[in-house]
Amino acid sequence: MIALDAMGGDHAPDAMVAGAARAVRAGLRVLLVGDADRLRPLVPAGVDIPIHHCPTAVAMGERRPTQAVRASPAPSVAVTMRLVAEGRAAAGVSCGHTGATMAAALFSLGRLPGVERPAITMVVPRADGGELTILDLGANVDCRPAHLAQFAVMGSAFTRRVRAVERPRVGLLSNGEEPGKGDERVQKAGPLVAATGVHFVGNIEPTAAFGGGCDVLVCDGFVGNIMLKTVEATAAVVTHIVREEILAHRSARAGAWLLRPALRRIRERTDASSLGGALLLGVDGVVVVGHGRSDAQAVSSAVRYAARCVEEGLVDGVREAMAAG
Amino acid sequence: MIALDAMGGDHAPDAMVAGAARAVRAGLRVLLVGDADRLRPLVPAGVDIPIHHCPTAVAMGERRPTQAVRASPAPSVAVTMRLVAEGRAAAGVSCGHTGATMAAALFSLGRLPGVERPAITMVVPRADGGELTILDLGANVDCRPAHLAQFAVMGSAFTRRVRAVERPRVGLLSNGEEPGKGDERVQKAGPLVAATGVHFVGNIEPTAAFGGGCDVLVCDGFVGNIMLKTVEATAAVVTHIVREEILAHRSARAGAWLLRPALRRIRERTDASSLGGALLLGVDGVVVVGHGRSDAQAVSSAVRYAARCVEEGLVDGVREAMAAG
Repeated sequence: MIALDAMGGDHAPDAMVAGAARAVRAGLRVLLVGDADRLRPLVPAGVDIPIHHCPTAVAMGERRPTQAVRASPAPSVAVTMRLVAEGRAAAGVSCGHTGATMAAALFSLGRLPGVERPAITMVVPRADGGELTILDLGANVDCRPAHLAQFAVMGSAFTRRVRAVERPRVGLLSNGEEPGKGDERVQKAGPLVAATGVHFVGNIEPTAAFGGGCDVLVCDGFVGNIMLKTVEATAAVVTHIVREEILAHRSARAGAWLLRPALRRIRERTDASSLGGALLLGVDGVVVVGHGRSDAQAVSSAVRYAARCVEEGLVDGVREAMAAG
Repeated sequence: MIALDAMGGDHAPDAMVAGAARAVRAGLRVLLVGDADRLRPLVPAGVDIPIHHCPTAVAMGERRPTQAVRASPAPSVAVTMRLVAEGRAAAGVSCGHTGATMAAALFSLGRLPGVERPAITMVVPRADGGELTILDLGANVDCRPAHLAQFAVMGSAFTRRVRAVERPRVGLLSNGEEPGKGDERVQKAGPLVAATGVHFVGNIEPTAAFGGGCDVLVCDGFVGNIMLKTVEATAAVVTHIVREEILAHRSARAGAWLLRPALRRIRERTDASSLGGALLLGVDGVVVVGHGRSDAQAVSSAVRYAARCVEEGLVDGVREAMAAG
């Protein structure tokens, strides 16, 4: 059973319920957490989705998420994580306020032994056709070198268990690959990562990492968040230029029409919302942080992603790796 | 007269001489700095390009660039910058080892008053059709907040003089726009940037910055370098996916054929080598740092860019702004 915060996200609760219905039709079990009076009419006839009633929610623009999740009565994201902590759900999913989701997960589930800072983790496509696990993408700024070493262990364990990469190559994000390169944090983190026992391939630049040079990319959350948003921004700039050039010439316009199905699949493959969302790695439970803009399909991807992490024993994998490291 | 280090760059000296010839044909005056015996046969007949003989060069893989540029006899990049310092050239261009170019520029030209750390500065296209000045892109890691404030003043002066933006909006690169966001450096830099008198629009995320939210984007060199390389990496991933999808379907293949001229222009517009290179801002002279992979066209763009910065009084603009700030 996957607990889904039905009140969090730009398109909540409609997209949440529709996404849950898709997941249920695909054979998963989902528990909606939210205002039963609003949710019940949205559930399609003939689809069985239980609802855990919880009338309040954290607003997307909330400035004090930590206080908000501890409010009484507890908001939907806090109840979602509590259901996971109590074993009534195997995993929790929220597309709402990221800070609130992290705070609720930390509060109810706590951290795994050896983890000082849980990390937001995503899997993105690489240029060589493979995939890249990246962490931290914004849970923590001003990380200490030791935190990066913990990210390396967690990211490696996740990649082995869930992505089934036998011996994941771990790289440390840097502005250059030579030992002297990197800022102070990266220079100090190198030896610590090497000492963890992960398959450390050293400092790596974005171009090499996205090109296939590693399976896990470790970075500070400020840097990682900038990197993630730069990927989105670049895609937007390229799209703008492509559109301008295509509209400028008639033969190109005809070409664009023929390309439409390919362009749609390209959008699907590069759109963050179809990646299933991010994981909060390092807490004692499976927590998927969906994109705020998630539509029904993205919600259903996030639920499936959470179910798969449960199935592959993600939390035990990270726990064992941290104990060994 | 623009001094061009003819020995630095992956395709030196051929691409350097060919690029110089293009620039000369377009009406510019270029002085080639390098091994006269190797350069002379490469100069096309009927094109007048003087050569300043200098037989040695810094290798692209040099690990100790600072020592290398002080060697005797001086390598080509050091001679190039000395010619600028002595007033025998109005600007210096090198597509060679970036660290060596920076070291040579600092050694011969020195910093402008008030500048603690010169910054690598580039102009890139925005999604709204405008352009974005970004600095620092990798000259300095572990910047202090005061350095970011100096970058703001330099970047604003450059954007006013060379890009002719009357009142450039300056943003501080961050993982979020609210005042509480950013790492410690960004949080401390905010008030310092605001106090300089530039038109400061606050913290800004990559998506907003590339979308048109500011004209100058200020960041630490480690973060900026990661961002720049992420842009390149993203373009490569998108290209891979586009090619895969297009090859998968016959109608898409036909569409791609019709799109070829547009795709070529897109590549030209998004290719770093057609942007004319980067500026080293904050030294007492115009210094253009071309991409190592520069071909003849990129070299000629870099020379034209240097000439334009001289024409617009870039150095005086930065000097005055630093004195006022």
